[in-house]
Amino acid sequence: MRPIEWKNNILYILDQTKLPWKEDYVLCFKYQQVIDAIKKMKVRGAPIIGVVAAYGIALAAIKYTGSNLVDYVHEVMGEFAVSRPTAVNLFFAIERMANVVNTNRNLSPSELKILLLEEAKKIEEEEREKSIAISNFGIEILPDNAKVLTHCNTGSLATIGPGTALGVIKEGWRKGKISHVYFTETRPLLQGARLTGWELAKENIPATMITDNMVGYVLSKKLVDLVIVGADRITLRGDVANKIGTYSIAILAHYHNIPFYVAAPVSSFDFNLEEGMEIPIEERDSEEVLSFANKKITAEGILALNPAFDVTPAELISGIITDKGIIYPPLKENIKKLKEELRL
Amino acid sequence: MRPIEWKNNILYILDQTKLPWKEDYVLCFKYQQVIDAIKKMKVRGAPIIGVVAAYGIALAAIKYTGSNLVDYVHEVMGEFAVSRPTAVNLFFAIERMANVVNTNRNLSPSELKILLLEEAKKIEEEEREKSIAISNFGIEILPDNAKVLTHCNTGSLATIGPGTALGVIKEGWRKGKISHVYFTETRPLLQGARLTGWELAKENIPATMITDNMVGYVLSKKLVDLVIVGADRITLRGDVANKIGTYSIAILAHYHNIPFYVAAPVSSFDFNLEEGMEIPIEERDSEEVLSFANKKITAEGILALNPAFDVTPAELISGIITDKGIIYPPLKENIKKLKEELRL
Repeated sequence: MRPIEWKNNILYILDQTKLPWKEDYVLCFKYQQVIDAIKKMKVRGAPIIGVVAAYGIALAAIKYTGSNLVDYVHEVMGEFAVSRPTAVNLFFAIERMANVVNTNRNLSPSELKILLLEEAKKIEEEEREKSIAISNFGIEILPDNAKVLTHCNTGSLATIGPGTALGVIKEGWRKGKISHVYFTETRPLLQGARLTGWELAKENIPATMITDNMVGYVLSKKLVDLVIVGADRITLRGDVANKIGTYSIAILAHYHNIPFYVAAPVSSFDFNLEEGMEIPIEERDSEEVLSFANKKITAEGILALNPAFDVTPAELISGIITDKGIIYPPLKENIKKLKEELRL
Repeated sequence: MRPIEWKNNILYILDQTKLPWKEDYVLCFKYQQVIDAIKKMKVRGAPIIGVVAAYGIALAAIKYTGSNLVDYVHEVMGEFAVSRPTAVNLFFAIERMANVVNTNRNLSPSELKILLLEEAKKIEEEEREKSIAISNFGIEILPDNAKVLTHCNTGSLATIGPGTALGVIKEGWRKGKISHVYFTETRPLLQGARLTGWELAKENIPATMITDNMVGYVLSKKLVDLVIVGADRITLRGDVANKIGTYSIAILAHYHNIPFYVAAPVSSFDFNLEEGMEIPIEERDSEEVLSFANKKITAEGILALNPAFDVTPAELISGIITDKGIIYPPLKENIKKLKEELRL
């Protein structure tokens, strides 16, 4: 299974809204189809949407027949930038593509198109490697025979490679350090149920699904030794935006004295933001909450909230597993160090 | 709308599994149909299942044509006692019916049948009155312009009368003390979405539904002033069994310094149990979690937990609103007092 594939100038995107019922690819011939796939969450997960946006920009460039490629690519990048607001990886990828354009303005359009596609492929390959690095570093936090809880989907579908939080879990299972995985179904779009369940079943990892409201129960029964989740954006002080529900789980873990880890590539850090409350939180269509599988689940006249993410403050986090190693508290100090190292 | 109705020796039960899509009554001609309705949660809610069981026992007696009515009714009561294990109201109702049988053994079968039916009607009427009393007492805890969060369904569908937690909310709205209601959808069976949404919409109370994993987010954004939930069983020290997810909400409320109230009739107290961990927690079929509206939502091979309830320790509870008044901390002491008063 490959969550995306570039072939003959077409971007194939595995339609994650149809999993686990159907393994269907969306064929993107035009960049608008890529944006649509991102907006409708046919592809989701902070690391992979950066990669997909990069390919989308390359695709736009390749299909362009006008006379001002540089301006056109900039316009397209603007469209990708507003496709989803929370995951910072998207903006990193766009910045990388912008750099290619800006430092190669002198080249011919056909040369520039090739460079843009190469950059997208490089971003993809790097994302895969980062996810492998995270999986390997993460082993360190696992006690023997660990029973772990995760939320949403942070596996191959979200990252190109093995995954972030789910990558650590898969590697832990392979190394015999994990005995059982609990995961939340993750309403409203059920990425836990549909995607994490699908990935865990493919790897034959013993796994139990719970509804989101069972987390307190499961922790109180000591069924879980630690929690690992992903991230969509991490600020300088170590506040983490991630799938709605993460914040609740972090508080519940804290109450039960259970370690709560975040796993994410360095590209999920936003070194421009200090505090979690500065992170823009995407509010999605309330129909996603009011309906399931196109069936309305509540009465007419009822409203719904639908924030796609919430923010977990640094204080509730036991460590952040990155592709450069694990960052332990004090997170603020150690993230500052990471930032300085990266600039060297 | 009446959630149940006794007419011409038939018990009509509004099928709550079909709400809000259809208002359909199950017609019970035999007590086995009543047990089936309880087990399949066509009728649910601690107070109402006590009433339904009482009518079921009366129905069994009325339809009985054999020669040993007393033994037969005792057998039937045994069957009702194992229909659902957690809500204690069921056992109270059975005890009341047993008392009628045991103190009237000398009467003719037809006389005893009439007495059993009268007792069931009395239990129903008392339950309605208790629910009105709770609604009235509850007003006291509401600040002006209160925005309140509730979980699951504790309204007319669960109680005959206006409700327990939802009864307080309705009365608060009527008195102009409540400005907005938030409620969880309450997976896996969506009693919040399907039933609470339906009741709130009928009363034109402005209401917003959230998925269960949005509670932390909603509390952190200060959208809610207090939480009120129901109860299926309350122990001597004030530990409360209630719909799965209640415990998580209580911890989240505690973390955000938001008052967390329980509303329940005195018939939900189990004076035989000291600690919450002594309460039997019903584990239901895992298919309820693995599916959503009859559609399988995860891969083959994935397991699921499905505890129908969890236990919130007394320490997390700001008060218990009963039909005899509000019990404030220290709960253990004040529940002891209540118990003593009731025995006078």
